[in-house]
Amino acid sequence: MSKSALKSTIKLKVRFHECDPLQIVWHGNYFKYFEEGREEFSKKHGISYLDAKKNGFATPIVKTSCEHKFPLKYGDEFEVETTFINSEAAKIIFHYKIFNSGKLICTGETIQVFTDNNSELVLNNPSFFLDWKKKMGLIK
Amino acid sequence: MSKSALKSTIKLKVRFHECDPLQIVWHGNYFKYFEEGREEFSKKHGISYLDAKKNGFATPIVKTSCEHKFPLKYGDEFEVETTFINSEAAKIIFHYKIFNSGKLICTGETIQVFTDNNSELVLNNPSFFLDWKKKMGLIK
Amino acid sequence: MSKSALKSTIKLKVRFHECDPLQIVWHGNYFKYFEEGREEFSKKHGISYLDAKKNGFATPIVKTSCEHKFPLKYGDEFEVETTFINSEAAKIIFHYKIFNSGKLICTGETIQVFTDNNSELVLNNPSFFLDWKKKMGLIK
Amino acid sequence: MSKSALKSTIKLKVRFHECDPLQIVWHGNYFKYFEEGREEFSKKHGISYLDAKKNGFATPIVKTSCEHKFPLKYGDEFEVETTFINSEAAKIIFHYKIFNSGKLICTGETIQVFTDNNSELVLNNPSFFLDWKKKMGLIK
Repeated sequence: MSKSALKSTIKLKVRFHECDPLQIVWHGNYFKYFEEGREEFSKKHGISYLDAKKNGFATPIVKTSCEHKFPLKYGDEFEVETTFINSEAAKIIFHYKIFNSGKLICTGETIQVFTDNNSELVLNNPSFFLDWKKKMGLIK
Repeated sequence: MSKSALKSTIKLKVRFHECDPLQIVWHGNYFKYFEEGREEFSKKHGISYLDAKKNGFATPIVKTSCEHKFPLKYGDEFEVETTFINSEAAKIIFHYKIFNSGKLICTGETIQVFTDNNSELVLNNPSFFLDWKKKMGLIK
Repeated sequence: MSKSALKSTIKLKVRFHECDPLQIVWHGNYFKYFEEGREEFSKKHGISYLDAKKNGFATPIVKTSCEHKFPLKYGDEFEVETTFINSEAAKIIFHYKIFNSGKLICTGETIQVFTDNNSELVLNNPSFFLDWKKKMGLIK
Repeated sequence: MSKSALKSTIKLKVRFHECDPLQIVWHGNYFKYFEEGREEFSKKHGISYLDAKKNGFATPIVKTSCEHKFPLKYGDEFEVETTFINSEAAKIIFHYKIFNSGKLICTGETIQVFTDNNSELVLNNPSFFLDWKKKMGLIK
């Protein structure tokens, strides 16, 4: 069913205040980079947090993870590759890879769900999300 | 008019992720400490951001400053002394002093204003704020 | 000597600047809470990042994850329960549970490794770490 | 002596995690934007934190301030204009202006000093800094 994966890439640079006393990016800050990756993906592929909001949904994150291979340091320029993982569940799953000059720095994942105006979990995919998937060729 | 200054003190500890590659607290993070000082003051003296909200007001910060004498390092235990500066203007002014074992680390200031439900600046002191000032003996 | 898991608990409070426009703690900030949990554990059980440093090691984080059940909001008081997971590998593994008034908010994990003064991965448990484990009754 | 002011401009975008429950950028985060402005200035005009380090100096911030006119919101694209303020003292002074579509959002200032390898304050301008000033036509 699913075609080749939808992806986006964004170039970022490590800022001074993101580094810790070990002279490397503090581990929790990678989730900021993933967020930027997600936003770039949304912009490129026409879906966003504000779209969800317009349709009455929030998309809170229910799971995050990050596996580190190498550290990033102050001034490093790197790429965040964000891949949409197509799932039948009412979830938005992204995988992330961060590269520094071609070297894999870390991999990560976020899982988001849909909640309605009463902050209740939505168990079926909202129609605006299914429409987007169709447009992208991810479902028929 | 004003009696002796209203103050509060809170003890905090420098956390690892608040420090930068120079092994000291990153300068912008002092405004987090001031925020904790402000919250401790509000708790102790019975006024808070949520009180303002209940009365239809937000209290955005319009001015911040910080002057550094000495750095704080990872693990340092320090005190934030927060002083309310009584002013006739419709403003909430706090001064801050951070001490590490009695040594003055930095001083700071924040100025907040009142905005109404339409995010418009409120030029006169809201009655809930005047009531609080009276209760505290800051005005008659 | 003691079998049952080594644990610590620390009480914290959600600060304003840790919350996002959805009025909840931004997901990446939970790793700050885990860090505070880890520090409390280290203090209570006599092992710390500074101990490692004194012995010539850094303990970079190589894996983090967090699974969210419920959000935390501004002003919420909560507990971080940190549990040391005993492993034969040269790793420091912690599991975390955050509770708000007894309700499980999220669970998480961090895995740290040891690197030497040349930032090289250390494959065997450093002796200062084995000594600590013995003292804690985790190994014989 | 001084010619027209040395400036730089960088375009940035407000990220989700930089916003607070009032739906606006949290006030302490403007110092991150100023830091990016400073780095862009350094890159454009050939002087940087790493230059200072290479010459045995650190350049800790001793004063920061920010005055807010309007808030920034999630997704806003804005410009940070960084201006070097030429001073005879052994200080690095920058003024900042943030604009959103031509509207002045805030102004700010940072003051840095030089410290040597012993973290002692340096009272005279280091020669690498004077060389840079000469090259820039700020002094003869």
